Amino acid sequence: MTDTVWFDRDRNRLCIIDQTLLPNEVKILSLHTAEAVEQAIRTLQVRGAPAIGVAAAIGLAVLAAEMRPFHEALLLTCAERLKRVRPTAVNLAWAINRMLAGAHDPESLAVQAQAIWAQDIATCRKIGVQGSALLRDGGAILTHCNAGRLAAVRYGTALAPVYVATEQGKRVRVFADETRPLLQGARLTAWELREAGVPVTLLCDNMAAGLLARGAVDAVFVGADRVARNGDAANKTGSLGLSILARHFGVPFYVCAPFSTYDAAITAGTAIPIEQRAGEELTALWYAKPMAPAGVDIYNPAFDVVPHKNITAFVTEHGVLAPDDLQRLSK
Amino acid sequence: MTDTVWFDRDRNRLCIIDQTLLPNEVKILSLHTAEAVEQAIRTLQVRGAPAIGVAAAIGLAVLAAEMRPFHEALLLTCAERLKRVRPTAVNLAWAINRMLAGAHDPESLAVQAQAIWAQDIATCRKIGVQGSALLRDGGAILTHCNAGRLAAVRYGTALAPVYVATEQGKRVRVFADETRPLLQGARLTAWELREAGVPVTLLCDNMAAGLLARGAVDAVFVGADRVARNGDAANKTGSLGLSILARHFGVPFYVCAPFSTYDAAITAGTAIPIEQRAGEELTALWYAKPMAPAGVDIYNPAFDVVPHKNITAFVTEHGVLAPDDLQRLSK
Repeated sequence: MTDTVWFDRDRNRLCIIDQTLLPNEVKILSLHTAEAVEQAIRTLQVRGAPAIGVAAAIGLAVLAAEMRPFHEALLLTCAERLKRVRPTAVNLAWAINRMLAGAHDPESLAVQAQAIWAQDIATCRKIGVQGSALLRDGGAILTHCNAGRLAAVRYGTALAPVYVATEQGKRVRVFADETRPLLQGARLTAWELREAGVPVTLLCDNMAAGLLARGAVDAVFVGADRVARNGDAANKTGSLGLSILARHFGVPFYVCAPFSTYDAAITAGTAIPIEQRAGEELTALWYAKPMAPAGVDIYNPAFDVVPHKNITAFVTEHGVLAPDDLQRLSK
Repeated sequence: MTDTVWFDRDRNRLCIIDQTLLPNEVKILSLHTAEAVEQAIRTLQVRGAPAIGVAAAIGLAVLAAEMRPFHEALLLTCAERLKRVRPTAVNLAWAINRMLAGAHDPESLAVQAQAIWAQDIATCRKIGVQGSALLRDGGAILTHCNAGRLAAVRYGTALAPVYVATEQGKRVRVFADETRPLLQGARLTAWELREAGVPVTLLCDNMAAGLLARGAVDAVFVGADRVARNGDAANKTGSLGLSILARHFGVPFYVCAPFSTYDAAITAGTAIPIEQRAGEELTALWYAKPMAPAGVDIYNPAFDVVPHKNITAFVTEHGVLAPDDLQRLSK
């Protein structure tokens, strides 16, 4: 199976799977203009906190090489625009800042982008190894949204433990919340797990409580878009509710995220900027005809914040860490 | 605005609004065959616990009058089939049993059906009067699924307090969960409230936690399909999770239901039969193209059960009752 994002150095292109077409079509996009890169991130052709960081890094390297001659101020302008396209995931700004800090010519930008890409694979693999120890043969987890390979370059974050456990010969079932409004669970998580031969059962988000009440799930695994200094974690809308339900039913709730998702500049979750998206995502986007009356008011935050007290542990490339340990280690 | 269900005595027809076409089209169906009545209930052209009870009662009266000559055994067969079409809502069996107990000829069946219809209106009105006392001017409630006028003949159950409060001059906003998979909140609740001029904001089910965390909601109001002797209440899938979230955030959780929803024969919620519905409701029903990979496993219970400890009070035609009081009064 191909990676989600990669750098075609020969043709100087940012290559991504167009995730808006899944699960019905696997189409690779090859991008080389600022407009196309920005649009790919804005329209969620590439999405997932780690994946958009890597895509932005490769995108900047491609844009730099396209300039004849190279124009650093222009690249900075592109970089600042890109950072603002999706405000919640800190990985986007993290990757862009890393590109700008160490690289002032097309060749070193390309090397840096390739390093960020390779690091994402290695980091996600480590998260998988750490997290697989939490999974038992014959067990089942519940996940929300897509924090699988489609959310990173390879392996993913929340699903990396499942992939590694499966390699190790454990059989782990994944219950996947469909994740309204954009159905990343139904379209992406169900698709990638089936491609990988991992058993998956799809449910509506509102069915998770009943599933947890039945004792059908050993643990909840989700990703994160930004983790505040105190361990509060912003993730796809619905994560807050799921964390409360997991706590209520005594089911462990794990947040799987690389350290690049950790934002020490933000004290607590209340300060994390939450992206508000268009109401049409609820009423019209996927439907053959309108599914709500025209002009109805819509509440559509893309993320919510899980308080650190609801998080059993963070699964990171440096180990499985309680919220307090995460804070200590990051210093 | 027309009622949701009525008896056209002149033409001997069961008349319903076809709810599968809302919010895009308001179409009245006039039914007079056993197949059409059964199909209307099965395919949710008429739905909502009180409404399907009334529709079945009128349907039986219509079928009885269509028989030439009247054939009581045949009517009993139709009645038994109808009862099984939707297993969770007890109102269906309640209305059918009441029809069969007191009426053995077409004329008395028609009178009985008309009485059940009129009683539904009066009962829902009383629920509205009782519940409106719980609402403040300028307040906001959150509801799940549709337990409004489209779920009964008129007024509804969970929304009856809002309609009565609005008549009394209070301004009450309703936050409406879209309610996956069948989107009764988006298609029906948002539509009927807008028709009535009540301010309504639509959200995805998974956004309720964030809304409650913000303190945006004074109380949660839902209906019920069956209430067990101990006060456990089966209602649309998602109600269990919402009840846990409401409790977590200290927001009152009210179940609005007539006494016909109370099933003294069932000790606790675990014994309430839960209807499982087709997986296509998640993956294909409303979509222009498939939104999940073909053949994926689906978990699709239509209802879940709210334990009585999560219910602040029942709003009934006989008053606002704590779960314990409900049990006492029903004896």
